[in-house]
Amino acid sequence: MNEQYPSRLLEKAVNEFARLPGIGPRTALRLTLYLLRQDAENVHRFCDSLRQLKDEVKYCRVCHNLSDTDVCAICSDPGRDRSTLCVVENIRNVMAIEDTQQYHGLYHVLGGVISPMDGVGPNDLELASLVDRVAAGGVSEIILALNPTMEGDTTNFYIARRLADYDVRLTVLARGVNIGDELEYTDEITLGRSIINRVSLDHYKSKL
Amino acid sequence: MNEQYPSRLLEKAVNEFARLPGIGPRTALRLTLYLLRQDAENVHRFCDSLRQLKDEVKYCRVCHNLSDTDVCAICSDPGRDRSTLCVVENIRNVMAIEDTQQYHGLYHVLGGVISPMDGVGPNDLELASLVDRVAAGGVSEIILALNPTMEGDTTNFYIARRLADYDVRLTVLARGVNIGDELEYTDEITLGRSIINRVSLDHYKSKL
Repeated sequence: MNEQYPSRLLEKAVNEFARLPGIGPRTALRLTLYLLRQDAENVHRFCDSLRQLKDEVKYCRVCHNLSDTDVCAICSDPGRDRSTLCVVENIRNVMAIEDTQQYHGLYHVLGGVISPMDGVGPNDLELASLVDRVAAGGVSEIILALNPTMEGDTTNFYIARRLADYDVRLTVLARGVNIGDELEYTDEITLGRSIINRVSLDHYKSKL
Repeated sequence: MNEQYPSRLLEKAVNEFARLPGIGPRTALRLTLYLLRQDAENVHRFCDSLRQLKDEVKYCRVCHNLSDTDVCAICSDPGRDRSTLCVVENIRNVMAIEDTQQYHGLYHVLGGVISPMDGVGPNDLELASLVDRVAAGGVSEIILALNPTMEGDTTNFYIARRLADYDVRLTVLARGVNIGDELEYTDEITLGRSIINRVSLDHYKSKL
């Protein structure tokens, strides 16, 4: 396809849209022309919401989840169980687990998993701050809720090693989650049950 | 799905994305988080390109195609054949026909087709300006390149009636284009050939 755009402004906007994952040039053109047909007010609101998100959103300084405030709503909720931390890869995983309404502890968002193939090492993740939270005391259980992939498993074992000297129970999600699947696409029932049926990491090791 | 967004800013941006056609809430979240991971510079460029398109793009005052200038590049190109007008529904159709490199005349973008079902009548389209262009003289042929649908056909016959008093040859695209398909998804070869093999509207009428 060798599109001849009637306008440089159109071409620029389409190219920007086409940078988004899963958006090809035809879809980008369709979306751009759709926006062009909307009122200026709607287009401005669309743009402003993205710009404001990028410029103003914060990351919770405790759990590193997205937040509008320095400490997120979950971390500052007095009703949550502060003795349990759920370690997840990203905020979509927090949202998926919150949707199940089966978990009432706190979170720790790593920002990724250890992946030598992608050049992601332990220092690229929020692992030191996880150890700090445990070292500060009061945490009795850590649920390792990473995606059931090789990288997730590697990260689980790295965390287990780093926390070996602390008196904290490490659990992983029950293996109701299918191997190779992404947490955020797992249905709420399965995901909720796998939190309830979480098993000790030792138990999990013995099954490997 | 009852998503609990960790941030109102995130929720707002996701909701804006989810207004776009074909973008569901999960895709909207994925695209928003993708943008959030990009440099601020990239996000600003994305937003600015859309805002600038909406605020600054013009519609050619001759053919009503999108344009960066008052008169578009095609209308102001001295190399184009000014005696032939190609009537299309929208600018994506102009782009599709330009891509075939088989047409060297000018365009007239209606901005839609007559569709009583959707409440689109002749006065909602650039039909009066089409008659004005023909009345101004110098046009010997009008190619009616609307989508081969009922609405396209209705619009063709409306145009034929409005232009009955003028000495202008009306043609339609050769019916190599499949009935019910959208012009912009037709492959270049078929679309190019259907311009070359265009037939007189009288010939077409006799086949109905």
